[in-house]
Amino acid sequence: MTVWSAAGQRAIQRCDTLGAAPYSEAEGQLFRRFLTPAHAHAIEAVGGWMREAGLTTHIDPIGNLVGRSKAARDAPALLIGSHIDSVHNAGRYDGPLGVMIGIECAAALARRASPLPFAIEVIAFGDEEGSRFPLSMMGSRALTVPLGEEALEQTDGDGVSVAEALRAFGLDPAEVPAAVRPPGQIIAYVEPHIEQGPVLEAAGLPVGVVTGIAGQVRLIVRFTGEAGHAGTTPMRLRRDPIAAAAECVLAIEQICAAGPADLVGTVGRILPSSAAFNVIAGRVEMGVDVRAANDPTRDTAVEAISREIAAIAARRGVAVGLERAQTLPASPCDPHLVALMEDAVGAVGVSPLRLVSGAGHDAMIMAALAPTAMLFIRCAGGVSHNPAESATPEDADIACRALLAFIERLAADFKGFAP
Amino acid sequence: MTVWSAAGQRAIQRCDTLGAAPYSEAEGQLFRRFLTPAHAHAIEAVGGWMREAGLTTHIDPIGNLVGRSKAARDAPALLIGSHIDSVHNAGRYDGPLGVMIGIECAAALARRASPLPFAIEVIAFGDEEGSRFPLSMMGSRALTVPLGEEALEQTDGDGVSVAEALRAFGLDPAEVPAAVRPPGQIIAYVEPHIEQGPVLEAAGLPVGVVTGIAGQVRLIVRFTGEAGHAGTTPMRLRRDPIAAAAECVLAIEQICAAGPADLVGTVGRILPSSAAFNVIAGRVEMGVDVRAANDPTRDTAVEAISREIAAIAARRGVAVGLERAQTLPASPCDPHLVALMEDAVGAVGVSPLRLVSGAGHDAMIMAALAPTAMLFIRCAGGVSHNPAESATPEDADIACRALLAFIERLAADFKGFAP
Repeated sequence: MTVWSAAGQRAIQRCDTLGAAPYSEAEGQLFRRFLTPAHAHAIEAVGGWMREAGLTTHIDPIGNLVGRSKAARDAPALLIGSHIDSVHNAGRYDGPLGVMIGIECAAALARRASPLPFAIEVIAFGDEEGSRFPLSMMGSRALTVPLGEEALEQTDGDGVSVAEALRAFGLDPAEVPAAVRPPGQIIAYVEPHIEQGPVLEAAGLPVGVVTGIAGQVRLIVRFTGEAGHAGTTPMRLRRDPIAAAAECVLAIEQICAAGPADLVGTVGRILPSSAAFNVIAGRVEMGVDVRAANDPTRDTAVEAISREIAAIAARRGVAVGLERAQTLPASPCDPHLVALMEDAVGAVGVSPLRLVSGAGHDAMIMAALAPTAMLFIRCAGGVSHNPAESATPEDADIACRALLAFIERLAADFKGFAP
Repeated sequence: MTVWSAAGQRAIQRCDTLGAAPYSEAEGQLFRRFLTPAHAHAIEAVGGWMREAGLTTHIDPIGNLVGRSKAARDAPALLIGSHIDSVHNAGRYDGPLGVMIGIECAAALARRASPLPFAIEVIAFGDEEGSRFPLSMMGSRALTVPLGEEALEQTDGDGVSVAEALRAFGLDPAEVPAAVRPPGQIIAYVEPHIEQGPVLEAAGLPVGVVTGIAGQVRLIVRFTGEAGHAGTTPMRLRRDPIAAAAECVLAIEQICAAGPADLVGTVGRILPSSAAFNVIAGRVEMGVDVRAANDPTRDTAVEAISREIAAIAARRGVAVGLERAQTLPASPCDPHLVALMEDAVGAVGVSPLRLVSGAGHDAMIMAALAPTAMLFIRCAGGVSHNPAESATPEDADIACRALLAFIERLAADFKGFAP
């Protein structure tokens, strides 16, 4: 058993503070979407904690909160970050814990005898989950590419566009392209994050070294049948899109269960055009999420699913539209940084387990800008996207110390920036 | 081809008038729920048409509009009626056409040489579809039994109770029990209604004689699994309530398709607790509607469905709650009135086809109060609960004349009221 310092406890307590009003939009549960008043309150609190840790804060043009250590204005930076938005009825640690661990490391490094050869920036991305607008990870995307009109014109469930939401947040949509980080500014991006899966718990380990992030495809499937009266349309004459969607859910489950263990497929959204008992719905929209550790496995599954969806629609005489809403390639972490992280984890007395992330993270976007590394923190039962999500102060503390050991190794290793 | 008079055309045109604002709550489609401003506007218009037809109008304590012919205050009445509320994105004839045909008959009877031996009351029920509150057919129910607190405390999707909605409509919830019609007041209830099915069209007939209404059971099924992250929960460890619901939809389809032709089962509502792509939902609520011409057929199907739901839940390790939200017994029409209606239909030159109604109607509630009869009017393609719902002025006119012939036969037959 390692000695437990205050850093891990403070990191967990701050996540708990962010779990309720005014940092949540919803009464009795956590729901914090991009550019909402709850998001603004979170920025205020997290910004305060960053400043206490000796960081200078600003909000970038897409609404990310950034805290930078005292360093020359043009000094390259190590970026430590994660996101502070949440899914509906969320847990408290998915995202915020990584930011809080980054703040603890920055506070510890501010007390370091000699300055680091690079700046530390802790970043709290405003959107990773995509729970307000269709496109997810807009916070990190905006650092890597200029977000165009297509992204800014997306609307939320109330018809509010990203551009309008930015203005309501006090930001100028015209400035969004200025969020892009120029080449040479970022040495590396490192993201501490709860595992959101059961592997570390099963292995009895507090933290783990991520080798890469699974690739992800999102499909929107729209079935159009024929609306009708539930009492008077004989079974044989029906073209019921809910029944077609049901077949589809089971086909996706079967195809993914028959594949390798890292292949997962989920229908998380099913929206009929009607909700009455006595109406056969006319249309159903389904959201499908498919992931695997490598892109060929995932693509083979998506092809099988697409063929099956077409066959179900043809057999039932319903029309189908299949839209690929998002494709994120599998994103390996930087091998050299993975080796440094392994060494750092070993140095704090933990056996360094390598694992793949089934969840998407900002690191997969940031890989376009800089080499990336991730440190996973154990969470109880692998439960995430759920109020029962849980992580311990002890594990968070080990993560803080492992990340500090990683930064020391990175500093020792640092020969100046070579883009 | 029969000669076409103005009555049918007027009845259809009035339904068309009621199909848009201010008689609809929704822009570009028809949606008129019980006790909404759209309902109030409809009462104003229909009440005007009733008064033009020589009827004296009032709104009863539950919000039904009633127009009564000139007759002694205590004269027993023939009630002709249907409903003026609608489902979401509705057709224009389901309900209102029956009321408009009743008004045309009342207008014709007001010009009759000698008075009828009973009063005519045309009634426009405020709620049949149940599209605002869980309980349906509240308009006709209130005439047959005093609606208790349980009914008045039901809430709509915005948390507004029936009692609050009545008050906002200018009615007093305490007066609702006074809507009950005393025994001896109603000779018979007759309801003209579009078929909402394909039988008359297939037979090439404008109208048909209904022998009875299929029994109906509504089930609410709630699956509770375990919410989780779509990327990190291996397929084999999932307890996904959407997948359980999908199996359920297909089991219901299979059980009903394997039964007699009049057995139908529909999942019209499927509501997951989450709508995100990247979340395994924690809970799903499903609405199931099962109907058949006779109660034993329906009950056998409901038992098979219930067993299958329990088996699916057990196999998948998800919890299930099964609630019987509504049971309406099959309701045969009065054999003597059916014979009179057959004779009346034949008298206007139409071969009298007998058929069962798969849809529920106010007549099945009114059967507790008086003998009932129904006249079906052909609708294009059997399409209903759908904006494409369509009926012709010619068919509506034949229905007016058949109903008048029925009333003449009832008057000739009338020996005074025997309760």
